Amino acid sequence: MIIANENFGKLASSYLFSEIGKRVNEFKNENPDAKIIRMGIGDVTLPLPKACIEAMHKAVDEMGSASTFRGYGPERGYDFLIRKICDYDYRRHGIKIDTDEVFIRDGAKSDTGNITDILGHDCIVAVTDPVYPVYVDTNIMAGRKEGIVYLPCTAENNFVPELPVGDVDVIYLCFPNNPTGTTLTHDQLKKFVDYAIEHKSLILFDAAYEAFISSEDVPHSIYEISGAKSVAIEFRSYSKTAGFTGTRCSYTVVPKECIGYGLDGKEYSFNELWNRRQCTKFNGTPYIVQRAAEAIYSESGREQVRQIIDYYKTNATIIRNALISKGYTGVYGGVDSPYVWVKTPAGTDSWGFFDYLLKEKAIVSTPGAGFGSSGEGYIRLTAFNSTENTIEAMNRI
Amino acid sequence: MIIANENFGKLASSYLFSEIGKRVNEFKNENPDAKIIRMGIGDVTLPLPKACIEAMHKAVDEMGSASTFRGYGPERGYDFLIRKICDYDYRRHGIKIDTDEVFIRDGAKSDTGNITDILGHDCIVAVTDPVYPVYVDTNIMAGRKEGIVYLPCTAENNFVPELPVGDVDVIYLCFPNNPTGTTLTHDQLKKFVDYAIEHKSLILFDAAYEAFISSEDVPHSIYEISGAKSVAIEFRSYSKTAGFTGTRCSYTVVPKECIGYGLDGKEYSFNELWNRRQCTKFNGTPYIVQRAAEAIYSESGREQVRQIIDYYKTNATIIRNALISKGYTGVYGGVDSPYVWVKTPAGTDSWGFFDYLLKEKAIVSTPGAGFGSSGEGYIRLTAFNSTENTIEAMNRI
Repeated sequence: MIIANENFGKLASSYLFSEIGKRVNEFKNENPDAKIIRMGIGDVTLPLPKACIEAMHKAVDEMGSASTFRGYGPERGYDFLIRKICDYDYRRHGIKIDTDEVFIRDGAKSDTGNITDILGHDCIVAVTDPVYPVYVDTNIMAGRKEGIVYLPCTAENNFVPELPVGDVDVIYLCFPNNPTGTTLTHDQLKKFVDYAIEHKSLILFDAAYEAFISSEDVPHSIYEISGAKSVAIEFRSYSKTAGFTGTRCSYTVVPKECIGYGLDGKEYSFNELWNRRQCTKFNGTPYIVQRAAEAIYSESGREQVRQIIDYYKTNATIIRNALISKGYTGVYGGVDSPYVWVKTPAGTDSWGFFDYLLKEKAIVSTPGAGFGSSGEGYIRLTAFNSTENTIEAMNRI
Repeated sequence: MIIANENFGKLASSYLFSEIGKRVNEFKNENPDAKIIRMGIGDVTLPLPKACIEAMHKAVDEMGSASTFRGYGPERGYDFLIRKICDYDYRRHGIKIDTDEVFIRDGAKSDTGNITDILGHDCIVAVTDPVYPVYVDTNIMAGRKEGIVYLPCTAENNFVPELPVGDVDVIYLCFPNNPTGTTLTHDQLKKFVDYAIEHKSLILFDAAYEAFISSEDVPHSIYEISGAKSVAIEFRSYSKTAGFTGTRCSYTVVPKECIGYGLDGKEYSFNELWNRRQCTKFNGTPYIVQRAAEAIYSESGREQVRQIIDYYKTNATIIRNALISKGYTGVYGGVDSPYVWVKTPAGTDSWGFFDYLLKEKAIVSTPGAGFGSSGEGYIRLTAFNSTENTIEAMNRI
């Protein structure tokens, strides 16, 4: 008799964004003329950089001719892209990452989810609260529901999680943070790296929003911290950097010195395990898409990406400043991040304020409670709309 | 302390195609002028159909303009593609598949690998021998090494696996088969469906080579067999159909009536579990790639795909006929498949004949032993080279 993975039965059944979608649709049906401004889901709106479009047209033509056609590529990604990553994203920031430490993939969601494949079954996993739900759900699917530890991030600790009490095996950190938009300084991140070295833990560092960092003391990569290569895997994505949410390309760095252990203390190279996982369960990111990602690193590509990021960062500043000027006392993030985390007015909870903004102002937000219990009393606003709509939304509030 | 998934340590360390690559490189270094003809790995060589190229150029342009740009798509795939699949691949063959039973993905390797996520930990898994290594390796990674049962496919049983003895929970079937190129008739496949219904087992049916079927009595889909929708998940791919090995698009059909069980007998919908898995660990196949796949179903696309398949099938026929005429007594497959499975001459084993073909004839094959112990004494030749090279290779033998 085929036994299903019963851990799926332990997942919370309603997914945050489907509930939001339901409420928005109800509102639309009741108010067909309302001009809804969506500041909820973190999807980009600007088109792909011109450099990427040109690179893709060229790559499409290559696929149409027998002499330039490409079949299976390397599972871990093409060298032309990996070399750019090692050079522009790391070497120029003083970090040495070898080409065989980079794995090209189709999204940070896929990779932060699939990484559980290489972890032992009984690991204790620490996540922040609030948290990107994928970290929690994928561990519940893998049978670790009882082994998840939450590290609260609240206004009281300035959204900097405390170190775990006692031993944890895996720590997910996402900074700049989704959903709060807050960051860690070099010293704050160093405490986690030191903890991981001392406890032989593994840090899964999700840097999907790295492109939005402009503050000097905020590290762009966890590998800026001494010793991090032995305890950390880093996830990067082109989704928010260059508008690749519908184009799908990301990468994961697994340093060769990053090791796990057997129950008998035997050492395992996570780089080898992840490589084996990729070669067995993946056949590479589309050639055309990897060419588009490569173009991000060209001179024109870098300039176009800078303009895109500036555009969204301007929106974030507009949101921050408008809310602060209107007397909102708890406005966080939005400086090194496209997300602004807003304390709900006294007397309303997350969903209550969500409903107020939707029904009275026709603005879609994301209720903070959907990201965990410490998110209660907050909403998340995103800077991914047009500047025009962002200004109008702030005028409505 | 971070414990690694120690099941990776139980995997066979040398991967078939890397060993082949090593031997081919050695030969090349020693014989720099040899004109090597590659008939080993199953990668396509013809360019993408024109209809796909045109569709991709159009989609790339859409991504370059704010008014037509697409961000996150539905995790399970765009309706425009799913509707074509339901219509052309199923309804026109008399099979009713609903749109919410189809999941667009990036490859049959990914999906036949990831499907283990929704299966209970202690399942007993049956695979054929020889077998596509992914089915075995992904189950070993998931901790099922002791629970794998092999169903031999040999000349003695005409490469039709016997039904499992006793209870097995999961049965992987790949037909037209990789590596043997053989097929099951309707009645032969029906025996497996009846077994699965009786034993409440799940069949994972890999139909990646469906496009090569021309024999009348060979089912294109397992759902042609009555009752199969309650016990079978089907995997399809555009890799071999339309040359998508470097473009990456596939789909998986999980019928709503296909159920698994809890240890207490509770029923789980595999469709719901797979949907949850996809929404949590995947963010959709690139929009551009889905538009390319859609174009396969246009009138010109279907005609272009037919020409591609005819080309490869002609090569398969050339291989079959040449070997038979040269006195090879065991030549299988190559009729409804791009693969020809060849008994090695008396006195040589798989790797011995591989080395003979490489060193004496400069032809790369795949040693059958790499696919399992019942593959010993065979090699696999593929029809994915040019017709010119295929003819030359046969002249050399």
